[in-house]
Amino acid sequence: MRILGIDPGSRTTGYGLIDQQGNRLIHLDNGAIITRSGAPLADRLNLIYTRLEELIQEFHPQAVAVERVFVARNPASALKLGHARGIALLAGVRANLPVAEYTALQVKSAVVGYGRAAKTQIQQMTRTLLSLPEIAQEDAADALAVAICHAHSHRLAGKIMRPELASRGQR
Amino acid sequence: MRILGIDPGSRTTGYGLIDQQGNRLIHLDNGAIITRSGAPLADRLNLIYTRLEELIQEFHPQAVAVERVFVARNPASALKLGHARGIALLAGVRANLPVAEYTALQVKSAVVGYGRAAKTQIQQMTRTLLSLPEIAQEDAADALAVAICHAHSHRLAGKIMRPELASRGQR
Repeated sequence: MRILGIDPGSRTTGYGLIDQQGNRLIHLDNGAIITRSGAPLADRLNLIYTRLEELIQEFHPQAVAVERVFVARNPASALKLGHARGIALLAGVRANLPVAEYTALQVKSAVVGYGRAAKTQIQQMTRTLLSLPEIAQEDAADALAVAICHAHSHRLAGKIMRPELASRGQR
Repeated sequence: MRILGIDPGSRTTGYGLIDQQGNRLIHLDNGAIITRSGAPLADRLNLIYTRLEELIQEFHPQAVAVERVFVARNPASALKLGHARGIALLAGVRANLPVAEYTALQVKSAVVGYGRAAKTQIQQMTRTLLSLPEIAQEDAADALAVAICHAHSHRLAGKIMRPELASRGQR
């Protein structure tokens, strides 16, 4: 089971690719798609879409996992984030991949075991869980965390263990 | 000059296609892409993208105009709107079309001559300006209005008349 995790953002979109082999998680790639803040919005969105499309073509993931956002600081930043998030979801669905969404609480619980974990804890735990040589960039680490969350809920669902968590994860 | 105007929305995305021939505006098509509120978000976004792609392939517009949104009621609705708006911008840029954005103030000023015009006034004026047999659906009328705004600012820019308005329109 190969998973592409995406942490969309108007300036920086993190991505992380992992393989799940039974209980093992194997890191394949992670990185950040950084757009120029001065460039036209349509061009920036096209860059995000094109890079995600390339990653899907290169790595052939079987599922895409995207962080679900409930709270944004204000309407203006929510609108900007929505643009990038729409692009991420579209990239998955147009590649005919199942697209799962997880809340930050689900992601943090799955990776750190604590729903209010800090960014640095996510970076440390993704490094540990995936045996990375160094901590990943912040958004890339978040993307890896979403992918791990998907692997986790998928495995649980497959074993019919703790079904309440599995169903929450797949909602 | 053929223009596709888009009024993106999380539930309903309006579109309007017009031809500009000198001072004349000719209506080609308008309508609303309505998504099922119960369907997965990624599928709804894919429906919007696919329909816009089909319209571009069928009508071959030379430009896309999308309403720019500054204010949303709250972060949650701004986020939803952002998803659909990102899709609209992407559909234009991936068809290699110039994508222009106009504020509601610019659109209303161009179509009704009054920046605080009501929705019904937009519907009435687009009907009059384009000699429609009946008023268009609300979102479709807004999309036609964005297209008219683009035609207007483009014509002004071409004639180097009122450059301050033209440059505002093309920003």
